[in-house]
Amino acid sequence: MATIVLYSINRTAQTTVRQCLIPYSKGASRVDSHLVVFHKTSFRRLTSLPRVRWVPKATGVRRGAVLVAGAAAAVAGFVASAIHFQRAEMASVIPKTEEEDTEIAEKCKTFMSPPCTDVKVLQQRKGEMCTRMEMLIMETQAEFCRALEEVDGGKFKVDRWERKEGGGGISCVLQDGKVFEKAGVNVSVVFGNLTEEAAKQMRSRGKVLKGKDGKLPFCAMGVSSVIHPTNPHIPTVHFNYRYFEIEEGDGTKQWWFGGGTDLTPTYVNKEDGAHFHNSLKEACDKHHPQYYPDFKKWCDRYFYIPHRGETRGIGGIFFDDLDSPSQEEAFSFVKSCAHTVVPCYVPIVQKHLNEPFSPEEKDWQQVRRGRYVEFNLVYDRGVKFGLATPGSRIESILMSLPLTAKWEYMHEPPKGTLEADMLEVLRNPKEWV
Amino acid sequence: MATIVLYSINRTAQTTVRQCLIPYSKGASRVDSHLVVFHKTSFRRLTSLPRVRWVPKATGVRRGAVLVAGAAAAVAGFVASAIHFQRAEMASVIPKTEEEDTEIAEKCKTFMSPPCTDVKVLQQRKGEMCTRMEMLIMETQAEFCRALEEVDGGKFKVDRWERKEGGGGISCVLQDGKVFEKAGVNVSVVFGNLTEEAAKQMRSRGKVLKGKDGKLPFCAMGVSSVIHPTNPHIPTVHFNYRYFEIEEGDGTKQWWFGGGTDLTPTYVNKEDGAHFHNSLKEACDKHHPQYYPDFKKWCDRYFYIPHRGETRGIGGIFFDDLDSPSQEEAFSFVKSCAHTVVPCYVPIVQKHLNEPFSPEEKDWQQVRRGRYVEFNLVYDRGVKFGLATPGSRIESILMSLPLTAKWEYMHEPPKGTLEADMLEVLRNPKEWV
Repeated sequence: MATIVLYSINRTAQTTVRQCLIPYSKGASRVDSHLVVFHKTSFRRLTSLPRVRWVPKATGVRRGAVLVAGAAAAVAGFVASAIHFQRAEMASVIPKTEEEDTEIAEKCKTFMSPPCTDVKVLQQRKGEMCTRMEMLIMETQAEFCRALEEVDGGKFKVDRWERKEGGGGISCVLQDGKVFEKAGVNVSVVFGNLTEEAAKQMRSRGKVLKGKDGKLPFCAMGVSSVIHPTNPHIPTVHFNYRYFEIEEGDGTKQWWFGGGTDLTPTYVNKEDGAHFHNSLKEACDKHHPQYYPDFKKWCDRYFYIPHRGETRGIGGIFFDDLDSPSQEEAFSFVKSCAHTVVPCYVPIVQKHLNEPFSPEEKDWQQVRRGRYVEFNLVYDRGVKFGLATPGSRIESILMSLPLTAKWEYMHEPPKGTLEADMLEVLRNPKEWV
Repeated sequence: MATIVLYSINRTAQTTVRQCLIPYSKGASRVDSHLVVFHKTSFRRLTSLPRVRWVPKATGVRRGAVLVAGAAAAVAGFVASAIHFQRAEMASVIPKTEEEDTEIAEKCKTFMSPPCTDVKVLQQRKGEMCTRMEMLIMETQAEFCRALEEVDGGKFKVDRWERKEGGGGISCVLQDGKVFEKAGVNVSVVFGNLTEEAAKQMRSRGKVLKGKDGKLPFCAMGVSSVIHPTNPHIPTVHFNYRYFEIEEGDGTKQWWFGGGTDLTPTYVNKEDGAHFHNSLKEACDKHHPQYYPDFKKWCDRYFYIPHRGETRGIGGIFFDDLDSPSQEEAFSFVKSCAHTVVPCYVPIVQKHLNEPFSPEEKDWQQVRRGRYVEFNLVYDRGVKFGLATPGSRIESILMSLPLTAKWEYMHEPPKGTLEADMLEVLRNPKEWV
């Protein structure tokens, strides 16, 4: 997971509206800056939604549209750009949800492990986005692990780890289970100063970052998971939801969310595909009608394996650099996505639980897992960045690799077979809803 | 193999002495320029051998020490740099070997397939380095495949393929054999104009390349192989020998050789390690006493997996950008290496042929194969370059991946086991001779 969090560092910026970050190690003064910004944005309205908005572009930075910000703890001003995505119609006052008021300590008891950050610190800073996001990722991890344990009968092994540069994580792994060959659900919360390499990479992708004395404090967190079942009729699922905050030398803050959920079946099952995509669409539609179609396309693009001319799976949604229409709105959307993980996947697992499979079907699954490895090691930016980052926890980064995989020379399923049908879908991504 | 040939494009230059290349598609005028250059170099003598010479360095280019060259078909002049590696003591007149005088057509009949280049063209150009190297790589492929077939009892499947941009290759694969799970031996001969991307990458690594009308004709060829046996007591072997020629706009030519042979056992076997390294040392020592120690170190450095803190195997030799002391000498060294492939590996295979193994030993082999995949997909420059190059033959590039591999979360063999002994050697490369 460290990778997938750190991966956010390595993205193109399109951010123009930024808010305050209080370094995670400082005092516990509460800042509801997002609410203020949110109220301001609520008066703006844009009727057209530029679809290109979501596509990361190295050239897409608008340096003029920067934040007018005060001190680190102050409420940020707001300068919106006309082409910046806004969704004013939903930007009325959103009351804090009940969840958020629930006693943090009580909630923490339901997690797979105490959270990465000390519970007392979380309680002191309960209104801050870093705290709210950490609670969400811990909750998502617990919800998902418990649901999988129920299906499998096995128990997740829980590893807490620390990052000497700041922060740490919780890796939950279930290996050689009855249903799951390898299931990993990671949480990480890391902070510190961006390495020169990371800052350079971010700048090269468009982020405008001016540090103080060469330092750029950041805080990044996320939940990430890959589940590889034994039965080839049960698809592999991957999801990842992450949040990133970075503080510039003049107090300017940048934040964004990223994430997605995608499915990698061994065989085409239209019903499964429709259920999976419809669940995601439903979560997206609560927030904006354009989210699902745009993020579905982004997902197909992201999980493409150029040297094979195939996508890794049948997709789902994928987004990054989400910093609008407000922090509150963006978080609310991410929350909806995170809460959709169990309902979009577990029913598919249950449906195929007792379906028999042949050695040939298992073999085809292994070949597909080889492609999964190819994507993850060659193209996945999170993995690449994680492997190149000193202090990364390699076992958590590579937890996404299947237990076993296969590479047969010149493997090409004969026309008309179910295997060929699968390839056809991977070569020409289809609409599932 | 296309990758491994193309890989040479992507290397740091230290070349100062260059010779003439006649574009492969042109007429068959014979040029023995290498002999002339060779004779010139034979009068130079350097008593000290700078060991750093072999280490590729992006900053190691000496632009002043360039070639004084005539037209494309003319004999190149020679300007040597004092720090450039020379081995004058061996640079006396070397007679053409008998092998080279053997009728080309007769030799071609012993290959796994007719060579990539038409036999008539080869005959017309039999003195040229491109022809001599193509004959050597075809011969090496045949020698090695036949030796493995004899051990295994199975037959290699032979695929000829063409590269639409120019050239092609011959891939020989034996899969699911009695002894070999997956054995691949590739030859490729490619030519054309360097892509802008390839030229850019070469320049970024130090090569000075000035094209004409933006074109840089090149010819690259090589033999490459990875053998993954079934029995975990039989090690995996990899070798690759390649040659590269490139013509600049003003007729200046650059050429160099690269290659190496390295062993990846699942368990430490001192005798095997000593036999393997001694065989390579013997081949090296015939040409220069510093070759083995330097290329052994280079090999350990090259096949290092940073994120694991381990080497891929127990090494062997690795070199690149070899353009001295003369083309004839460099070719002679490469020939010695190529002829050492069978004697350095096949006796090890035969020795362990009937050794029993447990499921646990097989499992450990699978974990190690996972690391093999990690190295090849994440770090191997040949694979990376191949995957990024349009028109590459993916199946030949990824032929090096094992049939099966495994990734267990947090796999760490207990201290005192044979598995831990292997890890110790991979973490601290040792001397074998």
